[in-house]
Amino acid sequence: MRLIRLENPPTILGSAAVGSKKEFEGPLGADLDLHDETGTFGMDTWEKSESEMQRIVLNLALAKAKCETAELDAIFAGDLLNQCVGSAYGLLSFGKPFFGLYGACSTFAEAAILGSMLVSAGYFHKVATVSSSHFCSAERQFRFPLEYGGQRTPTAQWTATAAGSFILGKEGEGPYITEVMAGRIIDGGIKDANNMGAAMAPAAIDTLLAYFEESGNSPDTFDRILTGDLGREGVLITLELMKREGYDLTRVYNDCGLLLFGGKSQDVHCGGSGCGCSASVISGHIMKRFHSGEFHDVLYLATGALMNADSTKQGSSIPGIAHLVHISSHK
Amino acid sequence: MRLIRLENPPTILGSAAVGSKKEFEGPLGADLDLHDETGTFGMDTWEKSESEMQRIVLNLALAKAKCETAELDAIFAGDLLNQCVGSAYGLLSFGKPFFGLYGACSTFAEAAILGSMLVSAGYFHKVATVSSSHFCSAERQFRFPLEYGGQRTPTAQWTATAAGSFILGKEGEGPYITEVMAGRIIDGGIKDANNMGAAMAPAAIDTLLAYFEESGNSPDTFDRILTGDLGREGVLITLELMKREGYDLTRVYNDCGLLLFGGKSQDVHCGGSGCGCSASVISGHIMKRFHSGEFHDVLYLATGALMNADSTKQGSSIPGIAHLVHISSHK
Repeated sequence: MRLIRLENPPTILGSAAVGSKKEFEGPLGADLDLHDETGTFGMDTWEKSESEMQRIVLNLALAKAKCETAELDAIFAGDLLNQCVGSAYGLLSFGKPFFGLYGACSTFAEAAILGSMLVSAGYFHKVATVSSSHFCSAERQFRFPLEYGGQRTPTAQWTATAAGSFILGKEGEGPYITEVMAGRIIDGGIKDANNMGAAMAPAAIDTLLAYFEESGNSPDTFDRILTGDLGREGVLITLELMKREGYDLTRVYNDCGLLLFGGKSQDVHCGGSGCGCSASVISGHIMKRFHSGEFHDVLYLATGALMNADSTKQGSSIPGIAHLVHISSHK
Repeated sequence: MRLIRLENPPTILGSAAVGSKKEFEGPLGADLDLHDETGTFGMDTWEKSESEMQRIVLNLALAKAKCETAELDAIFAGDLLNQCVGSAYGLLSFGKPFFGLYGACSTFAEAAILGSMLVSAGYFHKVATVSSSHFCSAERQFRFPLEYGGQRTPTAQWTATAAGSFILGKEGEGPYITEVMAGRIIDGGIKDANNMGAAMAPAAIDTLLAYFEESGNSPDTFDRILTGDLGREGVLITLELMKREGYDLTRVYNDCGLLLFGGKSQDVHCGGSGCGCSASVISGHIMKRFHSGEFHDVLYLATGALMNADSTKQGSSIPGIAHLVHISSHK
């Protein structure tokens, strides 16, 4: 059994989402708690801007959860920067026990899985999860410096400049995290670092199939099943392959990378990506729909591509992973 | 309270340590389960060699624990490579739920903390922890390509080519993990990336002081208190500052970075470092001393420096973190 049903489902006491100009201009702009038109967040390097986003988003989530920093028992966080420095510098000032995570774009769900299991077990009363990505720091680290003006391929995704945060607590009214399932590393053999959707789709399918089999739930249980971030390419692969396995996801399925940006009009090719993409979509847009009563059950399946710039140059294919979190308005 | 006493202390069912030529020639060489004179482990890039070390060390630990891969519920792992690809590629073939961690040289203790809490809580029956580092992949990533023949400063440490692994289980005879404490990110203001010991010592002291205060234990409780890896510089700072706080650690204190290599004769300057350094010392040397009955209580305090190559170039100081694990022969 990979599925874990939490015996004391933790409450999402508060959440926050932060973005930049492009994310604000996208279809979910109104769901951001804060955005910075310049993307600098007042800092003089893009890496420091990303750290500052993490600091801001955690502060906003704490405020919305009516939770003092002193009440936090631990922080679970990560990002895409080499050695996860976005989190290290951004969360330094909170002075809290810190678990650094790396799951690429799946990091926010990995944090939610670990945080909610440890709250449910009673080790911690309140914990925070945080993850972020920044288009400008990611481009120069993984692809080209912005000044180079590199062309993007049709299957490329756009790294979101965004961050999300949850505050999870033992007590309180929902929504709750009721079920979690950690992903396995799955290698579908894709070697094109500009086609992450195809690289990660096999991991999403692996986790989804295991979830439906072990939980007994069907796609109909959910208002939405959301991957993050497969983009258009990965979404089409997932829909097609899940259909062959007997699961028609058409009605409920979408992808955080497709939701965040306005498709062709925003010129993001296959959609958004990055640790901050699904983190901000779930923490902002989706949580608002829980609070308005529109959503009652969402299956959040964050996908990550576990390569680096050197491994693709060395000819290695790109393994993916997909961590699953069931968010529900009822225990 | 940061200290967590595990109600069902997990057993360290098996452990393994792997190294290269230099680690084998050091004072703990006989405690390695396997070493490769070439450091390549049969691979054609140093990054792939590091992944292969992770694969090998987990297989050895499973064998020593008499545990089938099928029995493993999850793997907690990380390394120093950008985006933690050492673990992603090295552990891919096991096909197990995977939690990617980044805590720099503290990763092995971070993995042990999370793994042991989740076994103690009953979510998992058996889990593995793995971490690694490789001198050649680390040098070219963090400092200079080996071909450049760069000079090392007197306070520099030598990244161990090594890996360690624990198999933790709900049942079985000890040694056990009885107490854990996650570290906080502490910034002492050090900006010299060749003086990691000084950068990480404040974090070690922060965790140690919290541990002694909350546990009621004193240094005398332990056969050894082992940091990993502060090196000679960080050890002297820690001894001195702990003394000022009223704790004389002289009798029991040592550092995995000092134990692994033979000091001046091996020309490692301030000692060993890297995610694989303390992982291999604890999984090999220390675990053997538990099994021989020589040790009954060891406080393992793994320290990590949470910078990257860009953050130091951008003038940021180097924050540290220290995660604590109490290994005991009795529950």
